[in-house]
Amino acid sequence: MPAYTEPSLKLTAEGAKTLLAAAEARAREIGVGQNIAVVDAGGMMLAFLRMDGAKNLSILSATAKAETAASQRQPTGRIAAETEVKMALATGTRVTNLPGGLPIIIDGQLVGAVGVGSGTGAQDVDCANAGLRAIGAQTFE
Amino acid sequence: MPAYTEPSLKLTAEGAKTLLAAAEARAREIGVGQNIAVVDAGGMMLAFLRMDGAKNLSILSATAKAETAASQRQPTGRIAAETEVKMALATGTRVTNLPGGLPIIIDGQLVGAVGVGSGTGAQDVDCANAGLRAIGAQTFE
Amino acid sequence: MPAYTEPSLKLTAEGAKTLLAAAEARAREIGVGQNIAVVDAGGMMLAFLRMDGAKNLSILSATAKAETAASQRQPTGRIAAETEVKMALATGTRVTNLPGGLPIIIDGQLVGAVGVGSGTGAQDVDCANAGLRAIGAQTFE
Amino acid sequence: MPAYTEPSLKLTAEGAKTLLAAAEARAREIGVGQNIAVVDAGGMMLAFLRMDGAKNLSILSATAKAETAASQRQPTGRIAAETEVKMALATGTRVTNLPGGLPIIIDGQLVGAVGVGSGTGAQDVDCANAGLRAIGAQTFE
Repeated sequence: MPAYTEPSLKLTAEGAKTLLAAAEARAREIGVGQNIAVVDAGGMMLAFLRMDGAKNLSILSATAKAETAASQRQPTGRIAAETEVKMALATGTRVTNLPGGLPIIIDGQLVGAVGVGSGTGAQDVDCANAGLRAIGAQTFE
Repeated sequence: MPAYTEPSLKLTAEGAKTLLAAAEARAREIGVGQNIAVVDAGGMMLAFLRMDGAKNLSILSATAKAETAASQRQPTGRIAAETEVKMALATGTRVTNLPGGLPIIIDGQLVGAVGVGSGTGAQDVDCANAGLRAIGAQTFE
Repeated sequence: MPAYTEPSLKLTAEGAKTLLAAAEARAREIGVGQNIAVVDAGGMMLAFLRMDGAKNLSILSATAKAETAASQRQPTGRIAAETEVKMALATGTRVTNLPGGLPIIIDGQLVGAVGVGSGTGAQDVDCANAGLRAIGAQTFE
Repeated sequence: MPAYTEPSLKLTAEGAKTLLAAAEARAREIGVGQNIAVVDAGGMMLAFLRMDGAKNLSILSATAKAETAASQRQPTGRIAAETEVKMALATGTRVTNLPGGLPIIIDGQLVGAVGVGSGTGAQDVDCANAGLRAIGAQTFE
């Protein structure tokens, strides 16, 4: 008989803060003010920072990247071109295909996601990966 | 003289549950965790299930697929490419052209719709059709 | 075994137009410009008229009255005072306790609802009842 | 040093379905068509049923009750009267103080919540508790 509950792994506030601080340090290193959002596995906000110089509206895209990566369990930017707009619209614009969102996978389990926005796509992914590395989570190319 | 009312057919909760259970069984058979939404002819939710492993944000797209199929009385995915975004925007993103939404037509009458989301489009349609078959509703290619 | 579908009665556009015309005639008789909304059993708009002189924002309240009466299967205004605000908020303000919304019940079946707004509560109910009478639906005190 | 992750318990689709079926059985027993919503610990929908005769707009309030109980980790209806409207408004009407939402607590851990709506508050709580009992979760007076 299938069980009513199953064991799971949960990202702590400490984990979210450590990830965020490392992503921020990397952003400073490359000289880009970033918005950095860390969400739990359900896509709910855990930690957020808008660095000096970060674009205001990228608060929204960084958050959407994190929420999308948590939902899809993979980096953002991998939806086929012919589908990405349909998926965005079908979710009230909550799914984004902009690069910069990475799932937080520890011991093979999804525990959350990080979304970075304000730089180029490559810079955003770079900072997100720095965050993941700091807490021993899987990184992405 | 046209009448003020006309006889109609209504999907019961039993019909919705039976359809959902069959769609779920098919999803398990093909090894995909799906979101499955069943709505009435007006597009209002009757039954919903998020299976283990289904994408969170596909809760929204599965529901949008069901609502769209109920409104259009045909499977989702048939809007012309040059029109689909306009229709999504004109309805506040409630109309979607993602495949996976099928109308529930019994004895030639629309009684509701089912929307499935989290797999590929083909998997979503497959599970939706399994649901329709279980209650003797028309299926779709 | 419970059935998957059950027979039901549906309000036609002709029924909605006839109801609306009678409510409008009554509003003219008592000298009040009204907003009049007719919805189906699921709360979806069937017919609407803003008469000359009707308040613009009562477009919203007349519609909310109709949607509420369809959902509750009874006239609006009967929610206990200590509950009405909670119910409005818990439904994203879609449930209203303003008088002027009446369910359309024909042969004992709910087929829709009418909401009237811009006059006093008593005037609104008066016009709504005139509409109901015109199509042989149950009226309310 | 605080850890980056911590072990957690997660409600499965099987758990959500079993809870929902028991709540539905209780609703049938007391003769009330209910809307029943089961959400995960983050408030995201897992399973939903609108029984025959349930009020359409209570789809929304049942869902809000579940989301609120998951967030507050306690039954809905316990917010002080002078605060309830402020909290609803401050959360875009997502927090409700209507009774009928209960947290799902298993082995002392919050794993989700159930919200029931369409009956009286006491009936809603009764059905929600029947659901909790079926999966061995803590019940509430």
